[in-house]
Amino acid sequence: MILPAGFRYAAAYAGIRKVAKDDLALIVSETPASAAAVFTQNRVVAAPVELARKNLRESRGRVRACLVNAGNANCATRTGDRVALDSVRITAKTLGVEEQQVLPASTGVIGVEMNGRLVADAMPELVAALRPDSFDAVAAAIMTTDTRPKTAFAQIKKASIAGMAKGSGMIQPRMATTLGFVMTDAVASPAELKAALKKAIAASFNRISVDGDTSTNDMVAVLANGASGFKPAAQALEAGLTEVLESLARQIARDGEGARKLVTIDIEGAATERDAETIARTIANSPLVKTAIAGSDPNWGRVLAAAGYSGVKFDPRKTDIFMQGIAVCRSGLAADFSEAELTRKLDESECLVRFVIRGGGKGRARFWTCDLTEEYIRINASYRT
Amino acid sequence: MILPAGFRYAAAYAGIRKVAKDDLALIVSETPASAAAVFTQNRVVAAPVELARKNLRESRGRVRACLVNAGNANCATRTGDRVALDSVRITAKTLGVEEQQVLPASTGVIGVEMNGRLVADAMPELVAALRPDSFDAVAAAIMTTDTRPKTAFAQIKKASIAGMAKGSGMIQPRMATTLGFVMTDAVASPAELKAALKKAIAASFNRISVDGDTSTNDMVAVLANGASGFKPAAQALEAGLTEVLESLARQIARDGEGARKLVTIDIEGAATERDAETIARTIANSPLVKTAIAGSDPNWGRVLAAAGYSGVKFDPRKTDIFMQGIAVCRSGLAADFSEAELTRKLDESECLVRFVIRGGGKGRARFWTCDLTEEYIRINASYRT
Repeated sequence: MILPAGFRYAAAYAGIRKVAKDDLALIVSETPASAAAVFTQNRVVAAPVELARKNLRESRGRVRACLVNAGNANCATRTGDRVALDSVRITAKTLGVEEQQVLPASTGVIGVEMNGRLVADAMPELVAALRPDSFDAVAAAIMTTDTRPKTAFAQIKKASIAGMAKGSGMIQPRMATTLGFVMTDAVASPAELKAALKKAIAASFNRISVDGDTSTNDMVAVLANGASGFKPAAQALEAGLTEVLESLARQIARDGEGARKLVTIDIEGAATERDAETIARTIANSPLVKTAIAGSDPNWGRVLAAAGYSGVKFDPRKTDIFMQGIAVCRSGLAADFSEAELTRKLDESECLVRFVIRGGGKGRARFWTCDLTEEYIRINASYRT
Repeated sequence: MILPAGFRYAAAYAGIRKVAKDDLALIVSETPASAAAVFTQNRVVAAPVELARKNLRESRGRVRACLVNAGNANCATRTGDRVALDSVRITAKTLGVEEQQVLPASTGVIGVEMNGRLVADAMPELVAALRPDSFDAVAAAIMTTDTRPKTAFAQIKKASIAGMAKGSGMIQPRMATTLGFVMTDAVASPAELKAALKKAIAASFNRISVDGDTSTNDMVAVLANGASGFKPAAQALEAGLTEVLESLARQIARDGEGARKLVTIDIEGAATERDAETIARTIANSPLVKTAIAGSDPNWGRVLAAAGYSGVKFDPRKTDIFMQGIAVCRSGLAADFSEAELTRKLDESECLVRFVIRGGGKGRARFWTCDLTEEYIRINASYRT
């Protein structure tokens, strides 16, 4: 994999999180990059999300840097706006760029005041550490309950795309989830980038769920600095972005809090794509389906029941369900299958649930989630303490 | 508590469930009782639900008996309709009543063929065992993963109301949840009963959630046989039914699979009651809120975030949140409270979360749920095996 030209990265420990692990990171483009981003649809929005949205607008989609911290969401705090603005200003000043060209992002606990001084104090060291090959250090610094960093890469002829994301809990995206940063040296205008991002997000980050919770801090940003000199066609740009974002989305689902398995849910034969997505999302969010998969239990009745309460019209008597490629339900009734064999197959680290409405419409959707284990409870029963 | 006059009850072990515990039960009214019922809104509907709905319609709301089995949902089975009909017929024949006057109900695993012969074989013994005071035996026989039976009683002057319910998982009601049977010796027409049930359900069974899953077999039926000779006013009937159904609903939430705590969620100041209910339901279904309460963690940020993604418009800056009566969030920001004291209070078996939008509308709602513990996972990862 080749990192896109013209970007530099740095991470440092600023003391925002309790454990001494990098918690502040900077992504810088050598030249002003075209930028597009999608943000959380939560009505409760963190201060850095509001400021990033404002800066993106005021800079007309021309961005020089992303500043990210983990350990504090800077959300529902008295000093949130001030801390976000001060952090952006000190970054802009140290880098010598306009403050509207810096996008801030935060992740961590909600409702705890964030100490802006920590960001300011760490800034000189952070900027001094900027290097073209520190991409992985940033991907590690933005993790919270993630057990591993998430990165993905794609190539469109001469141009490269490199993406990173974080996210493990409070995940059900809608417009964007968690934090994601995608850098490319392709040539693209902010408008072209925005159009490509919108389509790529719909088929990737908007199709995953860990627990059905939508965060207050979600943001996925794409920067295109044109350093490769290559301008891909709109479709190629969208395809490249989709490849990277889908990989990141799958990595997030697989690394769901406490998860042992990545679960892919395929719906076919719904009236519309929207209907297919609704059925898929409902199955993916059913705690009963997710616990059955954790226990390698081919309990297809729960899959059928979840589809049944999704609000989408379909005929259960024309519905077939497959798990790991084995028919478990035909025409809404139990199919003849070896439970022992399927239980063994469900022990694998990837599970596929296929839900087919025969003779239905052309609506299809693919959705990713994870199993629900005791470990999810342990992680979340004492996150703050 | 006084049981309503003119009803008899019986329970027996028919061999439908593996463990030798009563799994078949009968509730009989001495005379044709006025009846009303609400059923699941799941699109996948069990055979007994369809037959009960049909019988209620064809008998014009005049019912003599309810036949219930646990251990098999008789849903998504090849022989479902036949087994449900045969079971109703043998009941009607043995009791000497019309088959349209028998309401069947089933609860248990989905997609496994049910052996109708077991019901027929047990019927003579079951009918012979009918007694006015075997109410508790029926309440116990209909349990599945429930850890305790759920019963509730009310008095409207000379008339008595006695209700029972089962349900512990796959619970998010909408129109009705799990199985509930309410008997009264009040005088009421089927239409009067239906009107009272509809209102009483909206404020009770439609306001609980354990896991957000809606079952394929839900049904709550009310029988009024008029044996007391007393005809309560419409409001008194509704109040009595609401008292019984609210108690049963709370008992179901408290006995949620793996639950250690009953959680009451009060919303005030929403624009409409519907908005308040939507916020309450979203908070109640958030795994992050439920795990925090399991861990006695006053993580109000998750409560605020859940309300934020409920889809309801509100101003977070005018929102106060209280847990166990202690202000944890004022105007969308952290309030000054003793975390140690509140953690201790959250260890209690009942938790109250109050969410107040100041200067908002008159919309209020009360909702019940439970905490989410490792035990929920253990129960559901291997329900079939």
